[in-house]
Amino acid sequence: MAVKARTDLEALDRTDPLSGFRNEFFLPEGVIYLNGNSLGAMPLAAAERAKRVVEHEWARGLIGSMNSAGWYTLPTTLGRKIAPIVGAGPNEVVLTDATGINLYKVVAAALKMQPDRRVVVMEGSNFPTNNYMVQGLLEQLDKGHTIRFAEADGMLDAIDEDVAAICITHVHYKTGNILDMAAITAKAHAVGAAAVWDLCHSAGAMPVDLNGCNVDFAVACTYKYINGGPGAPALLYVAERHHGKYTQPLTGWYGHAAPFEFERDYRPVGDIRQMLSGTQPTASLSIAEIGIDIMLRADIHQIREKSMRMTDLFIELVEQRCAQFGVELVSPRDARQRGSQVSFLNDDGYPIVRALHDRGVICDYRAPGNMRFGFAPLYLRYADVWDAVDHLHDILASEAWKEDRYQVRAAVT
Amino acid sequence: MAVKARTDLEALDRTDPLSGFRNEFFLPEGVIYLNGNSLGAMPLAAAERAKRVVEHEWARGLIGSMNSAGWYTLPTTLGRKIAPIVGAGPNEVVLTDATGINLYKVVAAALKMQPDRRVVVMEGSNFPTNNYMVQGLLEQLDKGHTIRFAEADGMLDAIDEDVAAICITHVHYKTGNILDMAAITAKAHAVGAAAVWDLCHSAGAMPVDLNGCNVDFAVACTYKYINGGPGAPALLYVAERHHGKYTQPLTGWYGHAAPFEFERDYRPVGDIRQMLSGTQPTASLSIAEIGIDIMLRADIHQIREKSMRMTDLFIELVEQRCAQFGVELVSPRDARQRGSQVSFLNDDGYPIVRALHDRGVICDYRAPGNMRFGFAPLYLRYADVWDAVDHLHDILASEAWKEDRYQVRAAVT
Repeated sequence: MAVKARTDLEALDRTDPLSGFRNEFFLPEGVIYLNGNSLGAMPLAAAERAKRVVEHEWARGLIGSMNSAGWYTLPTTLGRKIAPIVGAGPNEVVLTDATGINLYKVVAAALKMQPDRRVVVMEGSNFPTNNYMVQGLLEQLDKGHTIRFAEADGMLDAIDEDVAAICITHVHYKTGNILDMAAITAKAHAVGAAAVWDLCHSAGAMPVDLNGCNVDFAVACTYKYINGGPGAPALLYVAERHHGKYTQPLTGWYGHAAPFEFERDYRPVGDIRQMLSGTQPTASLSIAEIGIDIMLRADIHQIREKSMRMTDLFIELVEQRCAQFGVELVSPRDARQRGSQVSFLNDDGYPIVRALHDRGVICDYRAPGNMRFGFAPLYLRYADVWDAVDHLHDILASEAWKEDRYQVRAAVT
Repeated sequence: MAVKARTDLEALDRTDPLSGFRNEFFLPEGVIYLNGNSLGAMPLAAAERAKRVVEHEWARGLIGSMNSAGWYTLPTTLGRKIAPIVGAGPNEVVLTDATGINLYKVVAAALKMQPDRRVVVMEGSNFPTNNYMVQGLLEQLDKGHTIRFAEADGMLDAIDEDVAAICITHVHYKTGNILDMAAITAKAHAVGAAAVWDLCHSAGAMPVDLNGCNVDFAVACTYKYINGGPGAPALLYVAERHHGKYTQPLTGWYGHAAPFEFERDYRPVGDIRQMLSGTQPTASLSIAEIGIDIMLRADIHQIREKSMRMTDLFIELVEQRCAQFGVELVSPRDARQRGSQVSFLNDDGYPIVRALHDRGVICDYRAPGNMRFGFAPLYLRYADVWDAVDHLHDILASEAWKEDRYQVRAAVT
């Protein structure tokens, strides 16, 4: 569409079927939050849940809450809940530990399934912690495994019969480019490799169909589009066909066949719980349920449709109003190929992002030069897209980003 | 001392230098909480902290709280705080992940230091998740490593020049027996092995001197005597002399030399942060600071003295009043040899523990037959010891534990 004025976007908000969800989140006055792809906003009910888990379950229930408040089984009960959001069966998912640690477990499990192969295919330019975790694993295995780094356009070709497993992130953390889960997984299976997917930037932002794509293992964080809270324990998926056969090295008592018998030696339970190690950070895990429950009430197809439209509009408006200041689209132009974020490149991206922050437009910076804008359809309005571009235009036109206070080195963003 | 009446214990409470700490905790009306060795009670200030981290830092600060609220550095800032509680230097400790996962990291690091040796010494009867984690690690290494299980009396003899590392829990989870950290570590070093200690049942309950004992690596949970909250991230210690030399396999971006450069390949930071993988469960981690702050204000020698006296009194009273019903002391009789817990054996331990719960005496059961009573000196009163024994006596004398409702199979306790 050709947008001429803020009123065009206000009109879209009036007919947005998801508009009611915004009322379930806290959004600070004067903030346009374009960073839900990094940390989702707080659902209002999360405050009440935090109070309950601390002041009621911990304070009054004490250790008894392991049973009475269901703490002990939270990883599986929340896994069962979140499963449909990623197209998984109810017994295929747990919520536990951090994303990177879960990635380590599933890649270790995948490599065990192909003991005679030595190559892992990864997209080298994607979020590097995945590379780091796999590098740590391979070095520890000390059997000559290597990572074959490939980018999107060479991904299918990189998967050949030397490959033990692929470990691929569905949506690129910087560009938002979507990889074809079905095609890449099919190629992996065709050559006898296991398929591991990282859904950090897709879970909750678009339909994901792990079962439909026949994916073997997957991980995802829950604190981005799922709004589970800062550092909430991560999702881990193992296709049911591997249950009872896979192994993973972080073998703790939660994954034991009889955890309360306190046997000396490990005996794996044989289902998805085998991916659990030990006691989970209960406050964080319990709070995550709130974001999951909201997500379950939303139509993921409506989320995807709004996401594509918002990012399309953002690109259109930025290019319409800011092209003369030198901003280069890094993300795919075709919405079908793009996640729920848009990145623009500018050599002065860091001070520009800081100037945007000062005006309440929260986006982030990913070196080198990427200004990254995330669009969480559950709580953003179309009008926010207009306002964000308005601020960006003002900052660029006035050269406000050249002020001394913005000329500092990139820190944590 | 020979205790005759509750008033003798009330007198001890009146002169207890730690008595003021009880007011900093929430303890439910009518509950005698003898399970602080499993999950510590809630400090009142933890409720306010939970509210702050969720409703202020998350809701209002959003992703900016990574910097402005110090989320990103919490693992090291809290590590620095907690370090003196275990006799560590300020740069030797982080708070991160779960205890078992941290154990995996440090044992992996320890084994790397002795690449030609194949034996790990562990106390097989201790909390089995440690065995499981090391078994998972050794199976993954696939180099013929084995665990040599030894019990307390044979521990020193089990440590010979085949041993790459020892991985020992300081205080036994079931009996409360204390192992001699200085002597066992010295023996390990004498034969060229690395010493890994698990402080789950000693951190916060007694003086621990990691530096003084020259320990190489250690882990501890923070949700028992340190009152960090359910499943709070765990302590991990690496002696400074190993910094820059050790490696661990769970290599994530938090341990990278330049995490915000997003380099493709892992470069270890070379200090304690190298033990970090990724984003932590922030609500749980932040709340843990409250318990740590309280512990830092308490005199650990007073804690230990009160702990020894309480457990002495408990043993004396149970044996005085309940001996005829068949309760056998499992814990060491000498307080100097005993942690802050006492276990008594009875074939009907499980229904007895359930009957105690019904009367507000919260203790736990560890198969087979162990009734385990923990004494957290910060919030327990000497009079509680009397009352707990009173209930135990009543249950045994009246045979209340034989009621049908208590005759169920052990579940999570």
